Amino acid sequence: MIGGDAAGMSAASQARRLKGPDELEIVAFERGHFASYSACGIPYWVGGDVPERDRLIARTPEEHRARGIDLRLRTEVTEIDVDRGRVRTRDAGSGAESWTPYDKLVIATGARPIRPDLPGADAAGVHGVQTLDDGQALLDTLARSGGRRAVVVGAGYIGVEMAEALINRGYQVTVVNRGREPMSTLDPDMGRLVHRAMEGLGITMVNGTGVTGLPTDDDGRVRGVATPAAEYPADVVVLGIGVRPQTSLARAAGLPLGDHGGLLTDRAMRVRGHENIWAGGDCVEVLDLVSGQQRHIPLGTHANKHGQVIGTNAAGGYATFPGVVGTAVSKVCDLEIARTGLREKDAHRAGLRFVTATIESTSRAGYYPDASPMTVKMLAEHRTGRLLGVQIVGREGAGKRVDIAAVALTAGMTVEQMTSLDLGYAPPFSPVWDPVLVAARKAVKAVRQRA
Amino acid sequence: MIGGDAAGMSAASQARRLKGPDELEIVAFERGHFASYSACGIPYWVGGDVPERDRLIARTPEEHRARGIDLRLRTEVTEIDVDRGRVRTRDAGSGAESWTPYDKLVIATGARPIRPDLPGADAAGVHGVQTLDDGQALLDTLARSGGRRAVVVGAGYIGVEMAEALINRGYQVTVVNRGREPMSTLDPDMGRLVHRAMEGLGITMVNGTGVTGLPTDDDGRVRGVATPAAEYPADVVVLGIGVRPQTSLARAAGLPLGDHGGLLTDRAMRVRGHENIWAGGDCVEVLDLVSGQQRHIPLGTHANKHGQVIGTNAAGGYATFPGVVGTAVSKVCDLEIARTGLREKDAHRAGLRFVTATIESTSRAGYYPDASPMTVKMLAEHRTGRLLGVQIVGREGAGKRVDIAAVALTAGMTVEQMTSLDLGYAPPFSPVWDPVLVAARKAVKAVRQRA
Repeated sequence: MIGGDAAGMSAASQARRLKGPDELEIVAFERGHFASYSACGIPYWVGGDVPERDRLIARTPEEHRARGIDLRLRTEVTEIDVDRGRVRTRDAGSGAESWTPYDKLVIATGARPIRPDLPGADAAGVHGVQTLDDGQALLDTLARSGGRRAVVVGAGYIGVEMAEALINRGYQVTVVNRGREPMSTLDPDMGRLVHRAMEGLGITMVNGTGVTGLPTDDDGRVRGVATPAAEYPADVVVLGIGVRPQTSLARAAGLPLGDHGGLLTDRAMRVRGHENIWAGGDCVEVLDLVSGQQRHIPLGTHANKHGQVIGTNAAGGYATFPGVVGTAVSKVCDLEIARTGLREKDAHRAGLRFVTATIESTSRAGYYPDASPMTVKMLAEHRTGRLLGVQIVGREGAGKRVDIAAVALTAGMTVEQMTSLDLGYAPPFSPVWDPVLVAARKAVKAVRQRA
Repeated sequence: MIGGDAAGMSAASQARRLKGPDELEIVAFERGHFASYSACGIPYWVGGDVPERDRLIARTPEEHRARGIDLRLRTEVTEIDVDRGRVRTRDAGSGAESWTPYDKLVIATGARPIRPDLPGADAAGVHGVQTLDDGQALLDTLARSGGRRAVVVGAGYIGVEMAEALINRGYQVTVVNRGREPMSTLDPDMGRLVHRAMEGLGITMVNGTGVTGLPTDDDGRVRGVATPAAEYPADVVVLGIGVRPQTSLARAAGLPLGDHGGLLTDRAMRVRGHENIWAGGDCVEVLDLVSGQQRHIPLGTHANKHGQVIGTNAAGGYATFPGVVGTAVSKVCDLEIARTGLREKDAHRAGLRFVTATIESTSRAGYYPDASPMTVKMLAEHRTGRLLGVQIVGREGAGKRVDIAAVALTAGMTVEQMTSLDLGYAPPFSPVWDPVLVAARKAVKAVRQRA
């Protein structure tokens, strides 16, 4: 196993469940200090909701080793020799290099954060939040810094979650975002709702603006974020401008990469053209079941599923990962943001003609206490009425409603079929027509009007 | 329209949307004082969560009339004359009777609560909660009664919701229930979790016990609930022992009724064998898409869908109601209870062999604050692995997760297909494997082991 986080260690654990140590030797190389941790939990640890780092560790190295998995931390794989079936490793402490042979190889090298090629990008006080080490470094900066001003660059999931974390730490937060609206995984009309809500939370939103540099003090610490129009002072800067598949090793080994730079696999998560090499997690591309195209979606829940499939297959069993529909859910304080399937621009890109319907409804029956407003946008294919995507912005109870659409997308349902869905109803849980059904009804009309 | 609540008035409204008053005359007869109200909201009004009755009224009689629907309250239909296409009505005030002819008839007579044939069942202080009038009568009793002891007879949805309502009103609540466990819409092993949780809320649970009588004081007011073993003192008694389709009119008119006493319709909600008569809501039986059998499921969300379909068809359009999967969700204080599909005994009755899997998980990532435990039970068909049913008992975030299973049931998914579902994941919303997926994974193993 190259990589000791979600995909790699899930694969190791699953293979070990199926084959004992006498049947299968498992060695896992991880270049960092930690394995099997929840990277998705880092913003909540930084924000203080999760009180200590170790809570994010699903299984300790000792636990893995007790189960017969030879996990080697601080050991980086520097080369894959496909022809001879071996990997070269370097011990981060001693610098010693050695070759380890394999019969079966699992590549789970994850993703690397995009670091902008800007002056000051490597200055003290500038942080990514990809690994536990990153999170610890950021917390150290927050503890050291006397200041109260934070700038987050990027307004995707990591950006908005880090905005919440820094608010929870008492910072004045500015988010500088290249896109027209935050959350570019939503259409701009829905992103606009997020924009307004974030401003309502006291976050300064600077949209449609690139960053030109990260000016530093004389001592080399970051002091702000510069854009063409202004400089936003900062005691700490968090970069959340996305990630790319970490596939330099795979590329050097001649393994097949897709348009997004991720490894290409078959449904058994086997690297295409290689019988004994599997790959999963943030370093692979996945099939989007709605568009039929390959995508790169770094997300722990996929990585865990990949690991499960890889471990089963590598141990001689049979399992597949059919693909994704692109579901994601996030929150900023009490604002919940969810999406699944295609945005308008994804549908265009996939050659699909579509209609949209956007509705406002509430999380509970309108007369029930704490019924909170939510907006649901739905895309349906022109003529066939097949569901293409759903986006939801609201408060408590909004986010996980996207699962209804995720299952319907997987099943290839039409919006008309959705209007009959037998969803859970009682006044504390939903209006008598669930918001997703209200959107489906409006989408049905839109399909008919355009037919 | 016979009946002015959810199904009837939805049908009227939808028909009016499609046909103007010059094209279609719509007369709706309702024997009570109210139309278009949320019967499902009554427990929350009684409990004080909903401050006033009128909040439960979705559309006032004046609003209906302004849209050209001739709604006649306090007017009971006493006979349907199918051969001559007319109904006989009686004005509740004057007692005057008259005949009204129809070209198209919609029967939406709802359900009637089961009143036990017991001494004292009609005594003062004994209440059902079927209509707004019932809710008002109960509130009047609560206001008048100096006491603090309430007994609820029955532990289905109405029973548990009324237990919550009475706790919220400051009563000591005893629930007397014939079944082995509360919530007989769950399997007893899951009902047992509800039982314990209700006791944890301070509710006295008396299960496996029939009621022999409702003893009264000298002034004729109820003073308790008698069982073979004991008498439970009560200042107020609420009956929540279920409902039956209100189909005496339909039966007298020779219309087709099913085994549960509900009207039988086709998918367009047309009464079988009658071109110009539709029926919907709590007075009809519906097709259970999982078992293939007819069921009676009185629930506002179905009634609204039926009304929508009936109104469309009666106005010359086309719509169908394909059936239900039996989804229901409820709560008692902070306990959430949900189910969809078949229980073990339903599966037996339908001739299905199955496996079960029960798991414990949490509503959020385990390290995230307020992650609350939930139990998920899943039934899957032997050999095919087709999902048959899901039951969930937990706290916040548990109930609406049943929608995932409701959509999967509708799509005919197997539990193995479900393990790949791309559900919304982020630490505040779900563990990395959603509890429903954890259950699906365990069900997959159970299917394989038994195959």
